[in-house]
Amino acid sequence: MCFGVSSSPIPPHDLPINLMNFTQTIRTIQQTRDSLLCIGLDLDRTKLPSTLRTTRNGILKFGTSIIEATFDLVCAYKFNLAFFEALGSGGADILSRLVECCPRRIFTIGDGKRGDIGNTAEMYARALFEQLGFDSITVHPYMGTDSVTPFLHTPERGAFVLALTSNPGARDFQYLRAGGRPLYEHVVRRVRRWNTRRNCGLVVGATRPKELQRIRSLAPDMPILIPGIGAQGGNLRMAVRYGCSHEGTLAIINVGRSALYASGGKDFAEAARREALAIRNQINEYRMEFFHSP
Amino acid sequence: MCFGVSSSPIPPHDLPINLMNFTQTIRTIQQTRDSLLCIGLDLDRTKLPSTLRTTRNGILKFGTSIIEATFDLVCAYKFNLAFFEALGSGGADILSRLVECCPRRIFTIGDGKRGDIGNTAEMYARALFEQLGFDSITVHPYMGTDSVTPFLHTPERGAFVLALTSNPGARDFQYLRAGGRPLYEHVVRRVRRWNTRRNCGLVVGATRPKELQRIRSLAPDMPILIPGIGAQGGNLRMAVRYGCSHEGTLAIINVGRSALYASGGKDFAEAARREALAIRNQINEYRMEFFHSP
Repeated sequence: MCFGVSSSPIPPHDLPINLMNFTQTIRTIQQTRDSLLCIGLDLDRTKLPSTLRTTRNGILKFGTSIIEATFDLVCAYKFNLAFFEALGSGGADILSRLVECCPRRIFTIGDGKRGDIGNTAEMYARALFEQLGFDSITVHPYMGTDSVTPFLHTPERGAFVLALTSNPGARDFQYLRAGGRPLYEHVVRRVRRWNTRRNCGLVVGATRPKELQRIRSLAPDMPILIPGIGAQGGNLRMAVRYGCSHEGTLAIINVGRSALYASGGKDFAEAARREALAIRNQINEYRMEFFHSP
Repeated sequence: MCFGVSSSPIPPHDLPINLMNFTQTIRTIQQTRDSLLCIGLDLDRTKLPSTLRTTRNGILKFGTSIIEATFDLVCAYKFNLAFFEALGSGGADILSRLVECCPRRIFTIGDGKRGDIGNTAEMYARALFEQLGFDSITVHPYMGTDSVTPFLHTPERGAFVLALTSNPGARDFQYLRAGGRPLYEHVVRRVRRWNTRRNCGLVVGATRPKELQRIRSLAPDMPILIPGIGAQGGNLRMAVRYGCSHEGTLAIINVGRSALYASGGKDFAEAARREALAIRNQINEYRMEFFHSP
């Protein structure tokens, strides 16, 4: 069911990927795979095709089928940890097996939005990097420096820090103005200081294009994970235009439900591939329009 | 190894505990058990007595021994989820079995500091409340209303929202002043609005007594979870004085490492009990001093 790295049609890199820092790795993967698309694996049992919904390994089969059907179209997979935790004690095993299924030259994001004091953050780093093998995770900024730096020890692995999120509740605190600028800008400026090993990224929702433009200008060379396309209503064209760095990379554009559940039938994997291909191509058309790349 | 509810020497309540809201439950438990002490189960394999460090079920045995040795002295147990996740795929089972070991009339806190968009927060609520059976969880405020309200659907269960944390990084964002008041005050005011079912609490570090006093004045009748005593250097007397509501309850004072690892030998459980008893009694002396209670 799972497949090996050897089957992946990826051209060789000049520099071995494990010697690059997080930012170089993302840029290289995006350039060599010609894709900024990330598929968000929000695996919800209730939304699976009926044949898989009731079987014990349904979630695992669904996830591996989606990965097998799309891996040549994406730069990254984002695993939403909540959906695996909701499966109970077996969820961690399913998650671990799915992460193993990802070809090595695709970036993996453990989307758990963690954030705790230093000794606890070290434990989360152990869980997500060592136990589960993720390349990166998402973190909350609220608890500050010592809650984030345990994820930044090695340049190959890093953290996407929430700056401005795609959901309605983002308005409650993230726009509060302190010292003449909104809270999310304070976060971006602080993340720049944490980025000494070039292994920090930001999370900015596609539902906020104007602010995305501003954030990209503040962090011209930092990966930005952009959720909110599809079910949440974000604008793809603006996400590419304002989310990319000057050479048309470093935006990681996440699509979840609209690809995963493009068909509720047995053809779910083919349908997901069609949807992923369409979005990947659409993104690349916008990259041509705005950056004359790829 | 695990023990039943019937062995718990708790006096009967007038109102069945499952008909109370979160805030009433905490107050009742604290009054009937005569304790504001919460033991934080930050179960670190490397700190276990050597006889348990290398055995497969060492963490489970350690945790159940700590609970058995202290359950009559506490109002709550706080489970630090990072430490269980760091154990790999078996961690969720150990966590689940330890939560089951807690007598029903002790409040349980799933300390995972979660926070994500609505549909994902619903999944975390399912994982933590339904799968693991926690009475409450800890959450980040950064993503606002729709990231917190999924934890507030039923009055018996609720969420402690991070207001002002005990760690050094709290200075990075939580004190930023917007509209004349610090960010943590904005959070407290927003949490009051979320508290329509009386099932919200706050997290305020014991390392910030002045701010704790201010926050208690803003939320006179809300449970406050207070970490930071012990290894982090918070002042216990000030935590009781400023953390309690006017009748000397609703502060939940967390002690972790200093009790768990009071002895590194075979007598670890007795040593943890001695430490817990000493802190519980010290807290009650301060309650007498400041509130003429218990």
